[in-house]
Amino acid sequence: MGKGMGSLRRTDMCGNLRDTDEGKEVVLMGWVQRERDLGSLVFIDLRDTTGITQIVFNDTLSKEIFEEAKKIKSEYVLAVQGKVRKRESINKEIPTGDIEVLASSFKVLDESETPPIYIKDDDKVSENMRLKYRYLDLRKPSMQEKLKMRSRAAKVVRDFFYDNDFLEIETPMLTKPTPEGARDYLVPSRVNEGKFYALPQSPQLMKQLLMVSGLDRYFQIVKCFRDEDLRFNRQPEFTQIDVEMSFVDVEEIININEKFLFKLFKELKNIEISLPIKRMTYKEAMENYGVDKPDLRFDFKLIDISEFVNKSEFKVFSSTIEKGGSVRGINIKGCSDKFTRKDISSLEEYAKIYGAKGLAWMKITNDGITSPIAKFLQEEELNSILEKMNGKAGDLLIFVADKTSVVFDSLGNLRNEIAKRLDLIDKDDLNLVWITEFPLFEYDEEEKRYVAKHHPFTSPMEEDIELLETEPEKVRAKAYDIVINGDEMGGGSIRINNMDLQNKMFKALGFSQEEAEDKFGFLLDAFKYGAPPHGGIAYGFDRLIMTLTNSSNIRDVIAFPKTQSATCVLTDAPTDVSEFQLKEVHIKVDKKQDE
Amino acid sequence: MGKGMGSLRRTDMCGNLRDTDEGKEVVLMGWVQRERDLGSLVFIDLRDTTGITQIVFNDTLSKEIFEEAKKIKSEYVLAVQGKVRKRESINKEIPTGDIEVLASSFKVLDESETPPIYIKDDDKVSENMRLKYRYLDLRKPSMQEKLKMRSRAAKVVRDFFYDNDFLEIETPMLTKPTPEGARDYLVPSRVNEGKFYALPQSPQLMKQLLMVSGLDRYFQIVKCFRDEDLRFNRQPEFTQIDVEMSFVDVEEIININEKFLFKLFKELKNIEISLPIKRMTYKEAMENYGVDKPDLRFDFKLIDISEFVNKSEFKVFSSTIEKGGSVRGINIKGCSDKFTRKDISSLEEYAKIYGAKGLAWMKITNDGITSPIAKFLQEEELNSILEKMNGKAGDLLIFVADKTSVVFDSLGNLRNEIAKRLDLIDKDDLNLVWITEFPLFEYDEEEKRYVAKHHPFTSPMEEDIELLETEPEKVRAKAYDIVINGDEMGGGSIRINNMDLQNKMFKALGFSQEEAEDKFGFLLDAFKYGAPPHGGIAYGFDRLIMTLTNSSNIRDVIAFPKTQSATCVLTDAPTDVSEFQLKEVHIKVDKKQDE
Repeated sequence: MGKGMGSLRRTDMCGNLRDTDEGKEVVLMGWVQRERDLGSLVFIDLRDTTGITQIVFNDTLSKEIFEEAKKIKSEYVLAVQGKVRKRESINKEIPTGDIEVLASSFKVLDESETPPIYIKDDDKVSENMRLKYRYLDLRKPSMQEKLKMRSRAAKVVRDFFYDNDFLEIETPMLTKPTPEGARDYLVPSRVNEGKFYALPQSPQLMKQLLMVSGLDRYFQIVKCFRDEDLRFNRQPEFTQIDVEMSFVDVEEIININEKFLFKLFKELKNIEISLPIKRMTYKEAMENYGVDKPDLRFDFKLIDISEFVNKSEFKVFSSTIEKGGSVRGINIKGCSDKFTRKDISSLEEYAKIYGAKGLAWMKITNDGITSPIAKFLQEEELNSILEKMNGKAGDLLIFVADKTSVVFDSLGNLRNEIAKRLDLIDKDDLNLVWITEFPLFEYDEEEKRYVAKHHPFTSPMEEDIELLETEPEKVRAKAYDIVINGDEMGGGSIRINNMDLQNKMFKALGFSQEEAEDKFGFLLDAFKYGAPPHGGIAYGFDRLIMTLTNSSNIRDVIAFPKTQSATCVLTDAPTDVSEFQLKEVHIKVDKKQDE
Repeated sequence: MGKGMGSLRRTDMCGNLRDTDEGKEVVLMGWVQRERDLGSLVFIDLRDTTGITQIVFNDTLSKEIFEEAKKIKSEYVLAVQGKVRKRESINKEIPTGDIEVLASSFKVLDESETPPIYIKDDDKVSENMRLKYRYLDLRKPSMQEKLKMRSRAAKVVRDFFYDNDFLEIETPMLTKPTPEGARDYLVPSRVNEGKFYALPQSPQLMKQLLMVSGLDRYFQIVKCFRDEDLRFNRQPEFTQIDVEMSFVDVEEIININEKFLFKLFKELKNIEISLPIKRMTYKEAMENYGVDKPDLRFDFKLIDISEFVNKSEFKVFSSTIEKGGSVRGINIKGCSDKFTRKDISSLEEYAKIYGAKGLAWMKITNDGITSPIAKFLQEEELNSILEKMNGKAGDLLIFVADKTSVVFDSLGNLRNEIAKRLDLIDKDDLNLVWITEFPLFEYDEEEKRYVAKHHPFTSPMEEDIELLETEPEKVRAKAYDIVINGDEMGGGSIRINNMDLQNKMFKALGFSQEEAEDKFGFLLDAFKYGAPPHGGIAYGFDRLIMTLTNSSNIRDVIAFPKTQSATCVLTDAPTDVSEFQLKEVHIKVDKKQDE
């Protein structure tokens, strides 16, 4: 039976002993990674969070104690007292491989049943098992490394912002439901019958109030909540590095964040990113890469060939353009050999996910062009296309003709997919880019109105303010995203800091004064009493850690994550609760079948 | 109308300019603390988070601009360009009092209506107004100082624990409802119909799982939630410094936490607390001070006089003792003059709050004893009492006779109240004490069973394990609290790390194996696979900040606190939500009048 440690006190960690420690009397404590009983000798690999030390039990122990040692099994928790000595057969695989500890005594601190999953990285069990036995999964050195990186990253973040005069200020978790945005998690109030708090989707309004309070520079590493359907890199609760500054414009925010990103990658990965970070307007990003978060680790720019085919007899092209769409292509340079017709069909299927109706293509060889569409095009059209796209023998050209938004979406995503299939991406490469000048609005087809692309407090660019009332779709925002390796890692904006402009903004969004008051009353009130120019940024902390640890799954960088159905298979949350508990908070369950 | 800053960029902060900056061209930005129009001169005190600089507008400005300057009002947000010069009349009250800035130009960044509360510390408005206009309340330097201290304190906490090999690991906010403990805040699930998450009351179980995962040393500054009725130092959401360590016993935890507390007070208050911190068992604390969080900044120990009056003819005393109670007193040394009969009546009323039926008293003068009870006591009894309590002329003795728990509670609280009334407490004094050896259980009169005083995973002291089944009320726990100036600032324990002992504990708590499985199944599962000896502590971060900032109200150390009715008067949370939102999460409101 396991007990306390008695008088034993740990002197060293299992990963730290070296041959210079020879002769040292030590007490190690940890888990049995494996045990080998060779009859007259028992070897144990003892593991703690720093590494492994080999322990030897031999006949210098009393027979009774030696017999006890033979009973040790995997994942028992031991305290072992002994002396460090050099190993006979050195293990170059581990840092402690030069030494072992000859046990003089030991204590079983706790026993273990046979664990349902192996404590090694290539365990090949289902993710469900890993999550159910998370406390065993987290014993794996690779998982511990991810959590250690997360902890170190949080420290670097905080050191940086503290050193630059930011205050970390906690904002409430029990807040007001959000009028615009994603779906809230609601919390029924007990004291205020029939009323509800919401968990924050972000501290956006609160951090703006802190600026109105004159607190000048704020940051927080903070949990945020969105009750949306989950994807590979989404969780119901996620962590954000939230930043806001007063008396600044876009330049100052970008500058300080570049210093931050430099420090982050330097301290955690010893990579010096080159400053200033490349910048690209939203328009450039869309035109060249089809997406607002381009992966610049590889080429394959989108090229607009509409001007050459707008009169074409190939109606798929010309009529698309006539209807206001466009035809754009990508030159998959030198890769014509690497795509069979079947591969191309598979690319077409992929493009269709993003709304494309089809994928046109041309393979260029020394003998001419192989393409199902070549016969529909005039020689002059073909030549113009080849010239514009720099098409040479060995290239594969692909095209989508559609509404421009569909062209962008399908080719933009196809571009990433092709790079992945061609294995063009160097995992150690790190490519950062700021995307700037986002549109202030996007048109919501469902609501038949403009909605804020970022949020309703985002400032338009000064030179576009006059377009607010006439051509809102053309208004660019003082908004920016930081994109790393094709993932949006953060984004922010300069906020509106005066009521006149804010009211114009609400008008463009189709809110009456009353609606605006109702939705954002307290922020609008605050703006009556002197709001400084201010702006900020928020980073997805989980995503940053994924990048820092080369993880492809957000759940791997969170100690106790939820599954895609928002459950915790370890604790079984969410669960049923008693009628009494529900009554206390004045609600009852309203199941579908009860309707 | 306020706009962006144009080309102006802030060069300095308002609190930092000194006479050595004379002649420097600066751009300051901030709020107008006050303005004085002297006709040919306008003075503005410009405020930012660092302090105030006096700005002068004079006839070196164009007439037009000078006229604009005359329109500036309180709390306008300005950018001011100008040159630093020495002041004619030095203001010794502020660090920038030697200089002023002669404005060469300025820009109104935002205007302000007349603020509903003054931006000064002694504003004397109601707390409700302060909370409703929190963004103005937070403009006060004293409020900003509290938030700055909070931010610095969080930094010191993190630096300390990082430097001592702790990992900061985030635990979930959407967790499983808690089977034992306070009332949970519930969060209905949308995906899992009819089921509920709970917001964590503390990360207790998760941090124990991290220890089972072998992560060795964990800490987190984390939001916790309890839906309890609020008192002056309680909030529905509060912040905890949460700590857990493996392979340690009480000594190691106390040692490292003493180093932590030393650093905290040294870095933030420049106070060197003397180590080791005084320790006192729970039993000593109760016997001497009546409470388990004694304020040791003043004396007034409780003294048991039962042995002298158990046979007394004064039945109030003797029959109380006969029924198992006790009679204890406090000598309010040298203060007999300071309490009139009316004052003593008021003390009696105070004692009654804590269940005392009355308060007996004796004033000792040079002429003898004045006391309503003296006449009922034998001279020998009186003499023994005076001797035991060291009663001398000038002293006031007070007594409570009751069940011992009532005696402790009433005299313990009275002791604090008397010190307050006598103004005996030096606010700068800092008195720390560890209270150890708490009872493992307390008897719950309502549930008619023993419940865990700390929590059901707290380890008993080894020497008391054998009493678990026979005399649970006598079992002491490996539990400790840190008490500062009479407030419990933190507490923790060594946890049980093996199943046999845990099962005994459940049995003592009256849980069947099934109930235990149902309530704590996942932790018990985890304990099957090798749990290390472990323990930890949790500090109330808000309370620590109250101590560090001499605040008497928890709301003053939180940026956006809730009122005592758990509402936010600023945002109006909690609020009504739409039927649609409720339907999405499968609940409906169940108001009392609907029953």
